[in-house]
Amino acid sequence: MSLSSTKSISVQKVEKSRIGQVDFDNLTFGATFSDHMFECDYKDGEWQNPTIKPYGNISISPAAKVFHYGQAVFEGMKAYKDDNGKIWLFRPEQNFLRINKSSKRMAIPEFPREIFFEALEQLVKLDKEWVRPGMGNSLYIRPFAMASQVGVSASPSTEYKFMILMSPAQAYYTGDVRVEIAEHYSRSANGGVGAAKAAGNYGAQFYPTNLAREKGFQQVIWTDASDHKYLEEAGTMNVFFRVNDTLLTAPISDRILDGVTRKSIIALAKNDNIKVEERPVLVSEIVEAAKNGSLKEIFGAGTAAVISPVSAFSYKDTVYEIDKQEDSYAAQFKKELLDIQYNRSEDPFNWRYEII
Amino acid sequence: MSLSSTKSISVQKVEKSRIGQVDFDNLTFGATFSDHMFECDYKDGEWQNPTIKPYGNISISPAAKVFHYGQAVFEGMKAYKDDNGKIWLFRPEQNFLRINKSSKRMAIPEFPREIFFEALEQLVKLDKEWVRPGMGNSLYIRPFAMASQVGVSASPSTEYKFMILMSPAQAYYTGDVRVEIAEHYSRSANGGVGAAKAAGNYGAQFYPTNLAREKGFQQVIWTDASDHKYLEEAGTMNVFFRVNDTLLTAPISDRILDGVTRKSIIALAKNDNIKVEERPVLVSEIVEAAKNGSLKEIFGAGTAAVISPVSAFSYKDTVYEIDKQEDSYAAQFKKELLDIQYNRSEDPFNWRYEII
Ligand SMILES: Cc1ncc(COP(=O)(O)O)c(C=O)c1O
Ligand SMILES: Cc1ncc(COP(=O)(O)O)c(C=O)c1O
Repeated sequence: MSLSSTKSISVQKVEKSRIGQVDFDNLTFGATFSDHMFECDYKDGEWQNPTIKPYGNISISPAAKVFHYGQAVFEGMKAYKDDNGKIWLFRPEQNFLRINKSSKRMAIPEFPREIFFEALEQLVKLDKEWVRPGMGNSLYIRPFAMASQVGVSASPSTEYKFMILMSPAQAYYTGDVRVEIAEHYSRSANGGVGAAKAAGNYGAQFYPTNLAREKGFQQVIWTDASDHKYLEEAGTMNVFFRVNDTLLTAPISDRILDGVTRKSIIALAKNDNIKVEERPVLVSEIVEAAKNGSLKEIFGAGTAAVISPVSAFSYKDTVYEIDKQEDSYAAQFKKELLDIQYNRSEDPFNWRYEII
Repeated sequence: MSLSSTKSISVQKVEKSRIGQVDFDNLTFGATFSDHMFECDYKDGEWQNPTIKPYGNISISPAAKVFHYGQAVFEGMKAYKDDNGKIWLFRPEQNFLRINKSSKRMAIPEFPREIFFEALEQLVKLDKEWVRPGMGNSLYIRPFAMASQVGVSASPSTEYKFMILMSPAQAYYTGDVRVEIAEHYSRSANGGVGAAKAAGNYGAQFYPTNLAREKGFQQVIWTDASDHKYLEEAGTMNVFFRVNDTLLTAPISDRILDGVTRKSIIALAKNDNIKVEERPVLVSEIVEAAKNGSLKEIFGAGTAAVISPVSAFSYKDTVYEIDKQEDSYAAQFKKELLDIQYNRSEDPFNWRYEII
């Protein structure tokens, strides 16, 4: 794909790569960044000056609207290296469509498809050594858009920055996760921004998640804000419940993020002849299933950890342990997804996107 | 008040003031900043290096958590100059308590009282020429705190910046405001962060407010997210309804900001023997009151505009016009508040705070 000359990306390369200083066997998720980043400004009604440059600080006014009004959205995706050294993305079209959907809800101008994909390709190619081979290793890619106009009055910004950062990641083992089902706090409301990857959705969860951690639970499974009767999703993962041999997961709504991993699992399950029900899931039916032994698995699904098995959940001061499953769906989907992502299997759904 | 030496504020003054370049008769709200700003960093578990320095850009990583997770809170207050050139704040203790309450909900460490007030005093004294005399003129003060740690993983930051910016403001006439009552979108949920001045609450309102503007309404009055049956507040104002001679306003909850102007009006009303009911206000009762002529006034209350009379509201495709009131409560409270703020009247509640 090529860009019209006015929109072509200018590239300033680093003088010397920092890659030699990185211990790829001891990475903290999201804390180390590759040599280059992408930056593009929105001004006078259009996205301008797309630039790839060395990763580093930006100079910005403390009165920029992003600091005061949280007008910001982001995406999370990964580049994978296969055994032959080829690099792939997984369903990047979904992330492109979703960031623009998020932007629309946050009154941020949509970003052009052409520049998005051109930036991704050039950036990953330039920093290809940062994508390490080996199952589980990846380069986490973080596109985001934020309000950069100066002004401490609560109205949409007229200026924005769209950036892409890249961070090398190892397999993200959450271990077995113990979760708390939300009974008081909530993540999003009908008619709110829960379906957007809006920055403020995440900061708002930190305090209740800290409270859960103090009680020994790493994550919260959010419930509907009206009655806390329905199970929705976790902080950065959609959630699946396996009752006997049926998978249940909350339907997409304006409160829930339309996860790429979630929709991929649903497609895989259908392909594997596993029954999936996308419908409101009552807390009470999962508690009942836990009690009568029909609850076989709970797992989270998201780009960072792929799939996180849940080993226990707490609800109304009772903790329900979930026994390990021999023929685990979580393990099956994780293998199927990784095999597609790392080009170790066929790609029946055309999910892989070749970079190099 | 003096600070222990380790916490004393270091001051770097501007070489030359920018005040001569400012047209104080044509200010856009929140767009011009005074010569100095305050900055303090949280690191290694404590707030350190409180500094007053020239207003200007900061250098920050694009991976700072504030850009990605909206972990940020703010306040809004004003300094007023009286006819003798003395400068006053209005109930700054309330703003201090509220920013720490907001911070707690957003998992941001609380800011020390001593540094907050010392910073305010020094900053306003240093930039005292920026507080223009004359009723309606003020220096808007914007304290805020935001997550500055580098990291694109969704967990609370370990580093923060607390800053104070100041922006000269003229009387903020909203004109008569036409509002839309929310029937689909919502601002906050039970168990959410609506009661905090969290950055993300504001960005989330821009899109639905734009939709209302396109229909000719400047503001949205939010309703409860569950059923849209109860009236809550506007984007940056609490809302009062006068039915006959009784004032109604929504009670404080975890969905509503505990406004300083709101609580001051309630105190003034009681003092003036005006009946105030803080209780859930049904949309249906206000529509009914509009129909039968008992709805006399609606007005918003907030620091920026003090009081904004509402001239019409729309609900279910019907627009209800509100006739101008001779003995307007809105006008009465506005005068009483301004007289206290500008030291033109007694201060029976001890709301004024002398700076200089
Ligand atoms: C709130 C939320 N839900 C679910 C997900 C999972 O989405 P995806 O599978 O596209 O990564 C994420 C993370 O991206 C998220 O932030
Ligand atoms: C959501 C919201 N409600 C109400 C208010 C009014 O509060 P105050 O009177 O303290 O300015 C504000 C603004 O500060 C606000 O942001």
